[in-house]
Amino acid sequence: MGPPVLRGAWRAKVITLFPEAFPGTLGLSLTGRALDMGLWALETIDLRPFGEGKHRNVDDNPAGGGAGMVLRADIVAKALDAAAVDTPIERARWPVVYLSPRGRPFSQAMARDWAGAEGLTLLCGRFEGVDQRVLDEYAVDEVSLGDFVLTGGEIAAQALIDATVRLIPRVLGNHASTEEESFSEGLLEFPQYTRPTVWQGRAIPDVLLSGHHANISRWRKSEAERLTKERRPDLWRAYRAAHGLDPEEDQEL
Amino acid sequence: MGPPVLRGAWRAKVITLFPEAFPGTLGLSLTGRALDMGLWALETIDLRPFGEGKHRNVDDNPAGGGAGMVLRADIVAKALDAAAVDTPIERARWPVVYLSPRGRPFSQAMARDWAGAEGLTLLCGRFEGVDQRVLDEYAVDEVSLGDFVLTGGEIAAQALIDATVRLIPRVLGNHASTEEESFSEGLLEFPQYTRPTVWQGRAIPDVLLSGHHANISRWRKSEAERLTKERRPDLWRAYRAAHGLDPEEDQEL
Repeated sequence: MGPPVLRGAWRAKVITLFPEAFPGTLGLSLTGRALDMGLWALETIDLRPFGEGKHRNVDDNPAGGGAGMVLRADIVAKALDAAAVDTPIERARWPVVYLSPRGRPFSQAMARDWAGAEGLTLLCGRFEGVDQRVLDEYAVDEVSLGDFVLTGGEIAAQALIDATVRLIPRVLGNHASTEEESFSEGLLEFPQYTRPTVWQGRAIPDVLLSGHHANISRWRKSEAERLTKERRPDLWRAYRAAHGLDPEEDQEL
Repeated sequence: MGPPVLRGAWRAKVITLFPEAFPGTLGLSLTGRALDMGLWALETIDLRPFGEGKHRNVDDNPAGGGAGMVLRADIVAKALDAAAVDTPIERARWPVVYLSPRGRPFSQAMARDWAGAEGLTLLCGRFEGVDQRVLDEYAVDEVSLGDFVLTGGEIAAQALIDATVRLIPRVLGNHASTEEESFSEGLLEFPQYTRPTVWQGRAIPDVLLSGHHANISRWRKSEAERLTKERRPDLWRAYRAAHGLDPEEDQEL
């Protein structure tokens, strides 16, 4: 028996060879408290029992040769069928995602979309990958955490779930704002400071101690723009385009 | 007592308010086996005991107002000092990294650099972030897992450690190849197939069953190029530029 789940609560189903990896970090802190409160639910689907033979094999050698092993289409299909039993068929209501460095890069916009869905199914890869045919047959959405390779999809699944769950109403409570944070307006977040006022000869910028809200807001916006421009020219171009400014023009503010 | 650590083995130090999140998924599968074998070592540094007052407070309200809490520079500095005790000062030998959506995006190249270092220190954020002054004072490298926001840095830390540790010699053993995988040549990986030969009316491409190694290799290269071009025009442009081809020209192969 897991914790009680509120009716209509957002649900994550994770197909994995390592169900013991869950909830992992998701069971701690704010996501863990929300899980205990039934604000969302997590179900792992162990891939192993769908395997064949005495050893419940789930993989085989890659066709055409090469190192590593490939998860079999027929085995993965059985797990996807099991995950689909009580979920809507429409992918907009219930995305089905395979975590792979070949996928489209995960983004805050995707997390927002998913938080608005009823839940999602995540397939965690291992070894060299999954037989392409099961991804095609089930119209699985390939999503990548970034341009790097992980041992398996489990940590990536936790990252995607964390980013999504924290956008579900009541999960963060008053602990943080999702309005002013990085990417919410297409900019990186401005720098933060707190007491002590002077530390190692470094002072908090005067404006932040002025109590003048309009000036503070202006300073933060300008710092967010400066940081984005310096560190992420790609985001900066997209931000300018979204605000009706020439993205390629002289990028001085 | 943790597992025995081989002399000179790569080490990760993680500063966190949730040491119980570790090793988490890193303790399973290939990374876990390598940890047990002493091929790498993991040390968590609990931030809480460095806090002040009865409740060991580590954070305070953001200067200038706003939601959330900011980790204090003086508290974080004490934890960074503790982590630095037995590590080289040169950042190339021992990177010191803060996980933040404002950082430079993590990449396979970064994982390769870090795997060649002696180890690294990761600072996991929580709440609204960390006082900017401690990042400046300690020349901390801000690194982002991607363009999305997480509840904290712990899952991101596990992703960075996993991507790095798997590149350390002997960690993967024969289980997978790091030569042919995504990003190793600047391309996404080609599609994989395994038995059964026909599944749901879908056949493995003939060339992969031909036994003709040169043709298989050619097909895989061309599929990797096609996928990269379709899915990641940004990587495709970089790949063309790296191979002395005009990145902006007609992108037909």
